[in-house]
Amino acid sequence: MSLGEVVLMGIIHPVSRPFYPVLSNDTTGVKSVPRGEIVMLTIDEERFQESFETYSAIGSTNNNGLHRLALTDEDKHVRDQFVADLESLGVDIRIDQIGNIFARRDGQNQDIAPILIGSHLDSQPYGGRYDGQLGVLTALETLRTLEDEGIETKRPIEIVNWTNEEGSRFQHAMLGSAVFIEKTDLSEALDLTDVEGNRLGDELTRIGYAGTDAVEPFDIHAYLELHIEQGPILEEHGNAIGVVDGVFGITWLRATIHGETDHAGPTPMHTRRDAMATAADAISEINRLPNRLSADAVSTVGELRVEPDSINVIPDVVEFTVDLRSYDDDVVAEAIERTEAEIVAACNRHGTTYELEEIWKTRHTEFSPRVRDAIADTAESLDVTYESIVSGAGHDATNVNQAFPAGMFFVPSVDGKTHNEAEYTAWGDCVTGANVYANAILALAGR
Amino acid sequence: MSLGEVVLMGIIHPVSRPFYPVLSNDTTGVKSVPRGEIVMLTIDEERFQESFETYSAIGSTNNNGLHRLALTDEDKHVRDQFVADLESLGVDIRIDQIGNIFARRDGQNQDIAPILIGSHLDSQPYGGRYDGQLGVLTALETLRTLEDEGIETKRPIEIVNWTNEEGSRFQHAMLGSAVFIEKTDLSEALDLTDVEGNRLGDELTRIGYAGTDAVEPFDIHAYLELHIEQGPILEEHGNAIGVVDGVFGITWLRATIHGETDHAGPTPMHTRRDAMATAADAISEINRLPNRLSADAVSTVGELRVEPDSINVIPDVVEFTVDLRSYDDDVVAEAIERTEAEIVAACNRHGTTYELEEIWKTRHTEFSPRVRDAIADTAESLDVTYESIVSGAGHDATNVNQAFPAGMFFVPSVDGKTHNEAEYTAWGDCVTGANVYANAILALAGR
Repeated sequence: MSLGEVVLMGIIHPVSRPFYPVLSNDTTGVKSVPRGEIVMLTIDEERFQESFETYSAIGSTNNNGLHRLALTDEDKHVRDQFVADLESLGVDIRIDQIGNIFARRDGQNQDIAPILIGSHLDSQPYGGRYDGQLGVLTALETLRTLEDEGIETKRPIEIVNWTNEEGSRFQHAMLGSAVFIEKTDLSEALDLTDVEGNRLGDELTRIGYAGTDAVEPFDIHAYLELHIEQGPILEEHGNAIGVVDGVFGITWLRATIHGETDHAGPTPMHTRRDAMATAADAISEINRLPNRLSADAVSTVGELRVEPDSINVIPDVVEFTVDLRSYDDDVVAEAIERTEAEIVAACNRHGTTYELEEIWKTRHTEFSPRVRDAIADTAESLDVTYESIVSGAGHDATNVNQAFPAGMFFVPSVDGKTHNEAEYTAWGDCVTGANVYANAILALAGR
Repeated sequence: MSLGEVVLMGIIHPVSRPFYPVLSNDTTGVKSVPRGEIVMLTIDEERFQESFETYSAIGSTNNNGLHRLALTDEDKHVRDQFVADLESLGVDIRIDQIGNIFARRDGQNQDIAPILIGSHLDSQPYGGRYDGQLGVLTALETLRTLEDEGIETKRPIEIVNWTNEEGSRFQHAMLGSAVFIEKTDLSEALDLTDVEGNRLGDELTRIGYAGTDAVEPFDIHAYLELHIEQGPILEEHGNAIGVVDGVFGITWLRATIHGETDHAGPTPMHTRRDAMATAADAISEINRLPNRLSADAVSTVGELRVEPDSINVIPDVVEFTVDLRSYDDDVVAEAIERTEAEIVAACNRHGTTYELEEIWKTRHTEFSPRVRDAIADTAESLDVTYESIVSGAGHDATNVNQAFPAGMFFVPSVDGKTHNEAEYTAWGDCVTGANVYANAILALAGR
């Protein structure tokens, strides 16, 4: 299929940015593919869509979303599908002790570092069909397309499905990749529990994905992850691809307010120590913090639990989470300080006390120029419009980038909706993204 | 045992109120017992305490409280104990279709209206050992003492354990008595569900307390309930007994805020429709409402539920309850209006919407002079200190009073703590209360 036909497959927007230099910092792999000199890869759109529908049916919700929390029966089911699809490709499958699924497609030279491709198959409690899944299926389609074309790349290519990226059920987002780069201890990860007290390690065993391979980093030449934008910028600017410069710094806090439980009737207001009233005051102020910090800062209280949770009882315990983000790590640090100051003020007002725990933190990330250039180069070659973008959300690529050259690119997300059943990316944009992805991987792995 | 010895059993405080006139509006029963003319009843303190310990062990928590939600296995267990104790007394036991347990001790005249005694055996999720249980055991001890003394009262005496007084598991407080006085429809009550979707009627059947008797009021000469105060006033004033004039008007609301779920990272603050930030603003203001309404008004947000309840997702649904009370029904009505106004203001601020449902309402109650006089009269006879008091909490007596002469008295509650495992009433105060109760019942039922 010629380049002209490839272009017709996706929704192509007018180029809105100046020419992006086709340069690569890749010194060990091949140089970027000069446009027009060789035939570009074209994915099998029909097969890609069929896989997308098959995977989307596993853990699907009534509203076209996904309910596929990490290590649930639904996660087992989708992992089984993924493993079956890899087996059909004849690749060598390995499962490590945190349940990450790897498979290797050999290259001409088995002794040089592979290209790593993939994303995650777990979802938010009521998430969409694109977050994570689209990245895994694009990587799978890339392997299938290479197989179709009988291309043996210079470098091996490893595909991966990372365990528990979302952190919704076991509260440590991007867990599988964190253990992989030895940022998080394996035994600590296996001991995480969900709200019902189920241990992550036991749940891995239960669904049959407690692998035997050691979780340890192997040398990686480049990791590339395709993801939906999860924000409104590409759609607003009319670009098909966002080359991700880097990711926000993120901190997660858990605040616990301790008051005194008492009867909602005969207890006068002035004698109360109300944990709920305290939490409400603090949350109102935490929501207002970004106004006073930076243009990009965001704060979110996503979880809240109250005890004893009875209509006619003054709560004595309220626990809530705070998610603070900015591309500037100093802004995040100040947001943490101000969050605590607001909790202190609310506790003083209501005669309550608090605990504040930092449950997770990641500094801002700048992705590898090698990978960013390969994406921009490929987009140029395919006449696909793109721009540079910063990600407000962490991804497994953020972790991998701490140890190896890594990068990401985004495809547009309608209305920027995500972590939401209404999450939607036009199918043409998915196909365009998959073609950019397959060709960028080929460029990185070398023909 | 003489009167002098009875007095020594409880903690007796100096009389802090002027003489209370020993008058009764009872026209069909006996007149009040002239002080000193006949020997007063004295309960068996040891047996009373033994029963208290036995019942307190059923559903007990590690902190000396009770976890005995309506129609759970623990509730079944305590009901079985109660039925066994009634059987030992040889009284005629009846269970009605809402699970209220009645038992009748015959009087000299079977054709005149009985005296009804009792309270409830269910508890808050983590409640104390006195709320409800002390009233049932005082009533049981009264029947036993009458039996010990071989006293046949003129009127029959009925003892009752009301179903689901707390309304913690099935959200309709004082349910059994509400169905009894035909304020609440039986089929509606049986169809109530708990948070896990269990139907009340099914749970009654499951624990073996779906009785066959019709739930319908029978003529009652007087209903008397002993309860702990659940507030600090008796302890502050040093009085042993609080004769309850009446009960606050109470309204329960359920507010649901609807926003839009989205990713906590890439979603700028100004594009959010955050249900949690809305709820926090509203709850802060609801907590401040009583300041501007009356000296006795109270407001409480006791329950809150968030969706999707994920640390990195902006919540799209937050549901919370509001409990509003005052002895003045107009104040409660204004509190409802202002609660809605604060929710509207918060929704306008955050671009969210709301639903507000009145889930339960009861107007303020004034108890029967017949019953109040019998209590005061008895306290005088026993030289027990007392005062008039208003109850911020609803009780089954509030319901019964809508159809028949009813009343209550309180014993002191240390620090006014209740609906709390730390709830505590000095044992001497329980015994004093039980002696007042037994003699007041004898006065109402007639020798």
